[in-house]
Amino acid sequence: MSLFAKHKERFELAQEACAKRHCWSPYPDMPDKYPEAALAKKAGQAAFEDHLARSKFEIDQPGIENWIGEEISPYTQKALGIVYPQSDIDALFQSAEVAMDSWAQAPYQVRIGILMEVIETLYTDHLFEVLHSVMHTAGQSYNMAYAGSGVNALDRSIEALVYAEQAMKSVTPSALWSRRFGSSDIQLQKTYRIVPKGTAVCFSCASFPTWNAWPSMMASLATGNPVIVKPHPATVLPMAITVKAFRAVLKASGFDPNLVTLAIDTTTEPIGKVLIKHPKTAIVDFTGSVKFGQWVEQNAHPAVAFTETAGCNTVVLESADDLDAALRNLATTMCLFSAQMCTSPQNIYIPQSGVQTLAGTVPFDEVAQRLANAVEALTSDPKKAAMILATIQSSQTLALLKDMTAQASKRGKLLLTPKPYAHPDFSDARTSTLLMMQVTTKEHDLYSQERFGPISFLIRCQDANDALTQATQDAKNHGGLTAFLYSTCEEFIAQAETAYARAGAQLTINLVGAMPLNFAAAYSDYHVTGLNPAGNATLTNLAFVTGRFGIVQSRRPVAPSLATPSA
Amino acid sequence: MSLFAKHKERFELAQEACAKRHCWSPYPDMPDKYPEAALAKKAGQAAFEDHLARSKFEIDQPGIENWIGEEISPYTQKALGIVYPQSDIDALFQSAEVAMDSWAQAPYQVRIGILMEVIETLYTDHLFEVLHSVMHTAGQSYNMAYAGSGVNALDRSIEALVYAEQAMKSVTPSALWSRRFGSSDIQLQKTYRIVPKGTAVCFSCASFPTWNAWPSMMASLATGNPVIVKPHPATVLPMAITVKAFRAVLKASGFDPNLVTLAIDTTTEPIGKVLIKHPKTAIVDFTGSVKFGQWVEQNAHPAVAFTETAGCNTVVLESADDLDAALRNLATTMCLFSAQMCTSPQNIYIPQSGVQTLAGTVPFDEVAQRLANAVEALTSDPKKAAMILATIQSSQTLALLKDMTAQASKRGKLLLTPKPYAHPDFSDARTSTLLMMQVTTKEHDLYSQERFGPISFLIRCQDANDALTQATQDAKNHGGLTAFLYSTCEEFIAQAETAYARAGAQLTINLVGAMPLNFAAAYSDYHVTGLNPAGNATLTNLAFVTGRFGIVQSRRPVAPSLATPSA
Repeated sequence: MSLFAKHKERFELAQEACAKRHCWSPYPDMPDKYPEAALAKKAGQAAFEDHLARSKFEIDQPGIENWIGEEISPYTQKALGIVYPQSDIDALFQSAEVAMDSWAQAPYQVRIGILMEVIETLYTDHLFEVLHSVMHTAGQSYNMAYAGSGVNALDRSIEALVYAEQAMKSVTPSALWSRRFGSSDIQLQKTYRIVPKGTAVCFSCASFPTWNAWPSMMASLATGNPVIVKPHPATVLPMAITVKAFRAVLKASGFDPNLVTLAIDTTTEPIGKVLIKHPKTAIVDFTGSVKFGQWVEQNAHPAVAFTETAGCNTVVLESADDLDAALRNLATTMCLFSAQMCTSPQNIYIPQSGVQTLAGTVPFDEVAQRLANAVEALTSDPKKAAMILATIQSSQTLALLKDMTAQASKRGKLLLTPKPYAHPDFSDARTSTLLMMQVTTKEHDLYSQERFGPISFLIRCQDANDALTQATQDAKNHGGLTAFLYSTCEEFIAQAETAYARAGAQLTINLVGAMPLNFAAAYSDYHVTGLNPAGNATLTNLAFVTGRFGIVQSRRPVAPSLATPSA
Repeated sequence: MSLFAKHKERFELAQEACAKRHCWSPYPDMPDKYPEAALAKKAGQAAFEDHLARSKFEIDQPGIENWIGEEISPYTQKALGIVYPQSDIDALFQSAEVAMDSWAQAPYQVRIGILMEVIETLYTDHLFEVLHSVMHTAGQSYNMAYAGSGVNALDRSIEALVYAEQAMKSVTPSALWSRRFGSSDIQLQKTYRIVPKGTAVCFSCASFPTWNAWPSMMASLATGNPVIVKPHPATVLPMAITVKAFRAVLKASGFDPNLVTLAIDTTTEPIGKVLIKHPKTAIVDFTGSVKFGQWVEQNAHPAVAFTETAGCNTVVLESADDLDAALRNLATTMCLFSAQMCTSPQNIYIPQSGVQTLAGTVPFDEVAQRLANAVEALTSDPKKAAMILATIQSSQTLALLKDMTAQASKRGKLLLTPKPYAHPDFSDARTSTLLMMQVTTKEHDLYSQERFGPISFLIRCQDANDALTQATQDAKNHGGLTAFLYSTCEEFIAQAETAYARAGAQLTINLVGAMPLNFAAAYSDYHVTGLNPAGNATLTNLAFVTGRFGIVQSRRPVAPSLATPSA
């Protein structure tokens, strides 16, 4: 049985889910529900510890010149001590090009079957190994590393394959065409090929490596392109495991493993620009900082660039039946992984007259205080804090927190001062509670960009309309992926839906309860819109795949033509 | 009946044709087959002459500041004397933005219905008016202006609507989503909107204005974006007629006509860069020179750019059962509209040992001479020449011909010297026969770029493999839309198909008879591949439309949630 046939049923369920966008996933949503969870968890931890013990992560890729690694666990603040192969860049591109030929010529169903098998392998053999490697590089909590960096990333990968298939299926492989020209008939046999753009470079970020990289790799590979993976130097291990898993399945399926290789660098000697400006780079997938992301967008040409950078995700608090329920959800979502998610809310726009509730208007200052209290309730208990906040990925974020705290004291009102909390399991963990400050719109420069980490702004606006205008303008002009609204007024909600549609941010309205506000369901929730500066890597829809291949035809007469020239 | 319903049957036939890629068109392929042709032709000519007589082309668009025009007919070499409204650029963008709102919010079926009506109107009321305006600006022959700039451009427009519909239909308008989180159920109502990127600027070129512009306008408008049309100053009239026709149908359908406006300039004071760098430009469609096209590709960001520039279309002559039949087709295609088509062959790569035929090997020099003779046979009779060569659009092309003729004498062998021919109907027509030169691969700099106009190169290659390698490398590195091969060896054909697929050029093999080699059938032949420097405006497939819109969702609980926080 072909791998495509093996995975056909699951693939068709995924296609249906993408079309109808209902809730579906082939994977259990919590680690405890994983088949034989205890064994799997143990084996995953052992595999991770084995990487630490070996200290040399072997990948048999071409052109290895050096072995480097500089990862530090946010949980122990100690070096992982693992080194990875650093290959000559030209050797990676050359071997990718060699590998591409037979891969590109295989029917797309063959490619998709193999990639579904890669997904299966990641799930079956590497999920908990990736989980520990994500914890000890990105610093996520155990549960988030399972869900957000594990099964949800696999779901998004299947989704990328669904859209790749949809785009390629739109191209018939052949056609018979005949037409009369003057007094003669011309009959042509036409063949249409899906031709990959060429080698893709996939940048993964420090805090959420797999979630963007896996679907991007799938989209490029499904459409025939090889992928060179360039992880952030702080978070290499999850991507090294990824690369090795892809290579093993590709090789076992009879294809050249050099379709997927690893390119690594150090923070002091970065290779990102070299990779992007390499003459053989045809596709760039980039997740990371705004600054470098903008450079990518402006300089990737002639390569096609898919970017996800950042922005200031906005909240508008206009009115709520149950304000405390709303603030509780908001607080949880703001704390989730210390707001180191591209979907974390940062800016909260509130009318200066306060928020209307069933119990009357709650004044602005009281709303602010109650939100601060809700956050404090979550973060003052170290056990709860550990589950929600997890750790701070980079020490740079601590420096930013310090700087922004100083700014808050000078330019606004400090509602919550960030401080480390004692992680119950890792005494040396790099942690921080939230910085929350209250400002007016005069402090626009402070909050009109992403302040990466647990930093939030309560912005005093003239009224509800001003709050909505400010919020949607900031999303449109400075980027924003998600947006959140609490309002009991249907007219205001409709206005907000239109304004946020124009601003290009995915809006969640009046959500309270157990679901984190920024939870994005694969097969149902769209991600980046491409309508504001937060990027264009839509993860996932047709636009995420159609630019990765071209269509080339050849045509020839079916039989020697009996036609005579008409001229 | 809605306009969508009115055009539904035709639209469905177009969808079927795009999927199966068989021969189909709702339009007659020759002017004489047009319904009541004699009347229509007369009315079209009268409409054109009326534009000349009025000398002021009225469009009631906003911000008009000036009336300008500098068109010269290639048939008479006299000024048309028509002036067009030049609007303040900011006024055009502002009115486009105002117009976009209700257009973007209409269901896409409404937009597509209206655009099908525009197509119908162009066909019914303006086809022969456009024909004469294309003749007297672009300089095309009567028949080409009917087919290539008329019905075929309309076919490509319908095709763009088919792919726009396919891409938008892939997004369900709403979904009900429910999932368990801990001990509570969350049920969300989700709404998905197609949101246009924003104002598109559509550049049309001097020699083939409607063929690229009409489908681009359709792709942008179908996905909700307004379009500012910026014609080449030498060829404004066909696009002014276009803009006016779009505006009339939009207005009659209850939408703001400012969804489509005209931005014109002069050769001495171009506004192209101003339009591209305008902060409100979200999409750029560009057809034109390589030089400006590259600037567009590198500078359009953050706008999305769809470009069709140029390259050196290649021919490989390896072997042929009937060499004369092949040379006859090649000659006709090289002469068609004096090679001022983006699909015209320019570089002919021939093994130095000659071409194998059923009658034995024909030596290189003899192949060259026989091709030159075939061209001469077509161009020495003014009546035949007029039908095939038509006129030279720009006087710059005459200057280039002069320069390249001098180069040919110095660096190669002059096989055909270009000279004017006497047009039987227009004694002052700007005309030229072909320049054909024989060179070796040492003269690579001469032929490794588009030499716009009736200029061709016979390139002496070491052998058949060298010919194929040179040709495909030139297409890959310097751009190329079409490619042509004559070979009786199946192995060589297979090798060429693979090599041209990689090079990204659309290949026609062993075609002889009444069909011009570069004839591209709507709904069947793909155009630009995006795989080489000739551009990325694929005209038409999914990649041509998916970048023109984003998907924005909003989601909210179906009923007040009964869930309790799980944490």
